This record gives sequence, C-alpha cells and structure tokens, in this order.
Amino acid sequence: MKRHAKKDFPVSDVRRFLEPGPIVLVSSMWKGRTNIMTMGWHMVMGFVPSLIGCYVWSENHSFDMIRKSKACVINIPTVDIAAKVVGIGNTSGRDIDKFEEFGLTALPGAKVQAPLIGECHCNFECKLVDAGLIDKYSLFVLEVVKAHVVESPRYPRTMHYRGDGVFMLSGANTSRYRKGFKPEML
Amino acid sequence: MKRHAKKDFPVSDVRRFLEPGPIVLVSSMWKGRTNIMTMGWHMVMGFVPSLIGCYVWSENHSFDMIRKSKACVINIPTVDIAAKVVGIGNTSGRDIDKFEEFGLTALPGAKVQAPLIGECHCNFECKLVDAGLIDKYSLFVLEVVKAHVVESPRYPRTMHYRGDGVFMLSGANTSRYRKGFKPEML
Repeated sequence: MKRHAKKDFPVSDVRRFLEPGPIVLVSSMWKGRTNIMTMGWHMVMGFVPSLIGCYVWSENHSFDMIRKSKACVINIPTVDIAAKVVGIGNTSGRDIDKFEEFGLTALPGAKVQAPLIGECHCNFECKLVDAGLIDKYSLFVLEVVKAHVVESPRYPRTMHYRGDGVFMLSGANTSRYRKGFKPEML
Repeated sequence: MKRHAKKDFPVSDVRRFLEPGPIVLVSSMWKGRTNIMTMGWHMVMGFVPSLIGCYVWSENHSFDMIRKSKACVINIPTVDIAAKVVGIGNTSGRDIDKFEEFGLTALPGAKVQAPLIGECHCNFECKLVDAGLIDKYSLFVLEVVKAHVVESPRYPRTMHYRGDGVFMLSGANTSRYRKGFKPEML
C-alpha cells in the first residue's frame, strides 16, 4: 500500500477533518506494545488549545493503554482501507498485533510515544489532558499537539458509521454556501 | 416547504443519524420565546440511556435558554434547506425570531417544552441531564427522551461542516462491509 507524503498542519484547524464525523483509528503504545482501535464517538471541544473529546469503552484493550500512557494518535482512514478499518474494529489487541495483522505502517510520533499509522490521510498526535471524566462517562479529553496531513487530495474520502454494519461515505465538498457567512463567522 | 410525516424512532438508535457527524439545528424555548442555533460539535455518549454530548458556546443566545429550561430539541436538517441552516448560524436570537425569519414550522414536543422543527428529517427531544461540565467545557450532557424520524428516505442527505464556509455533503450509504463484523458487534 502506498504511503502518502504529509505536511505539518495547524493543530487549531483539525476540525476541518474531525467535525464532519468520520470513523477514526486510534493508535496507542504502552510498555513497548502498540494497538489500534476504531472510534466513532468523538467531538471537537475547542480550537486553542485544540481539544477533542473521545468516548473509549472500558472493555477496549486500548482503554488502559491510552489512560496509562496519557497519549494516543487519532488517524483518519479513507475508504480505500475500509476492510482494514472494519477488521480493526472487530478484533482485539489482546489477541493480535494489529499493525502486523492488517499490514499497516507504524511511524514514530514527534511529540508522543504512540505510533502514527502511515496509510491514513491524517495523523493527530494527542495528549490526554483531562482524565477526570473517564470513570463517569468514558470520556477522554485530548489535546492535539501535532498534526500531519496529506497535502493532496485536500479532503479525504471518509467513512461515517451509522451502526448495524452500515457506513455513510463522504460525498462532495462545497463552498457554495460560504457567501451566507458573516466574515467573523468564517 | 413540505413537511414530512414522521414516526416514533427508538431513542437508543439515534446514533444512526448523529454518529455520521451532521450539522444539526438545536431548538429551545424559555419564557415563551423560541430560538434555533446551528451546532457541529456533538457526539454520542451512550445507548441506554441515550446520551449526547454537545458543545454550546457561552456567547450563543441559546446557551442560557437550554441551561435554564434544561431541555432542547436536536433537529437534523437536509441539504435542501442548506441556505436556512447557514442563515440560522449567522444570526442571533437576540435580534430575530428565527422560526419566523426562516419560514420554519415550530411543532410541539411530546416530552419537552422546546419546539420541533417540522422541516427537519429527525427531531430528537432532549433533556439536560448533567449541567456539571458546562462551566469548564461548555459541554451539555443531554438525554434523548423521544425521537421522531421521517420514514422515507431511510437516510437523510446531510451537511457536515469543515469550517471556513466549507461543507461536506453526505454521500452513499453502504452495507458492503457488514460481512466483516462479528455478530455481537452489530
């Protein structure tokens, strides 16, 4: 599989890729072992700092890895690796090495120990900045501290989960409604 | 504008419409006055109870209306009313009556005082069940207590915001990857 050249991207602008709501892959590392999980429950919570809220189920093998290492990488996969995304979501890191099993490339992070997934369109290195909502809501408050994004195409073709095995695939991107915005709202 | 016939929908299944990440319209009522805001920062936080986390900026006129009335309706608009969605996001309920200004129909809720927007594909009546994260994160934890959804088409054509006036429009829906799921993951 081709690995795409990436550029640094402003961390305050990651909403461009996350706010539309794609399924993401979350990679982590703890005690020298890596893992990957799929995640659909996430939201932008701020620009500066660049905050992302993520729901991680306590039964996921990644739950303790992220909590203990206080870091992870949010990777945005495109439709061309859809079968891998589903495979990752239907296996456990307790049983297999997901990078190896799914033929994905673990690249070193610049600011966190967790590995980047080379084959994804975006890699957002994140630190766990508030663990206080984990027990009550399984909610991890993350700060994006470094972002790497493929330069072209400008927008990835992403997968958006509806439950019950159904995905919505991202469609066209348009600026045609931009004229309806006040300048200060852009 | 045509108003669509709707049916009751299981509140534990609203992820079908929210997890893909569309822009939503949030309607509220306080002291006899209604309002509508656009919202892109939201996430599913649970099935039973059906929890949704929403970021509402404290400068929004809706902020106090939702906090004080402890309720709102999350409405999912389709692309055919895109211009209204953008208009709603670029005006304030301090200045105008948005239902009147944008020619939208306020329908009574079954379980909350806040009005449903007749022209939207889905209306999720919500109660504010945890106000404890509002001061720190502008995060409203809502429970969906009643859901109304248009029966056909099965999936709405939604708008997903990227910032800077750019929207991603929802594309095709597919079950082709369903065979990769374990039965207990569906």
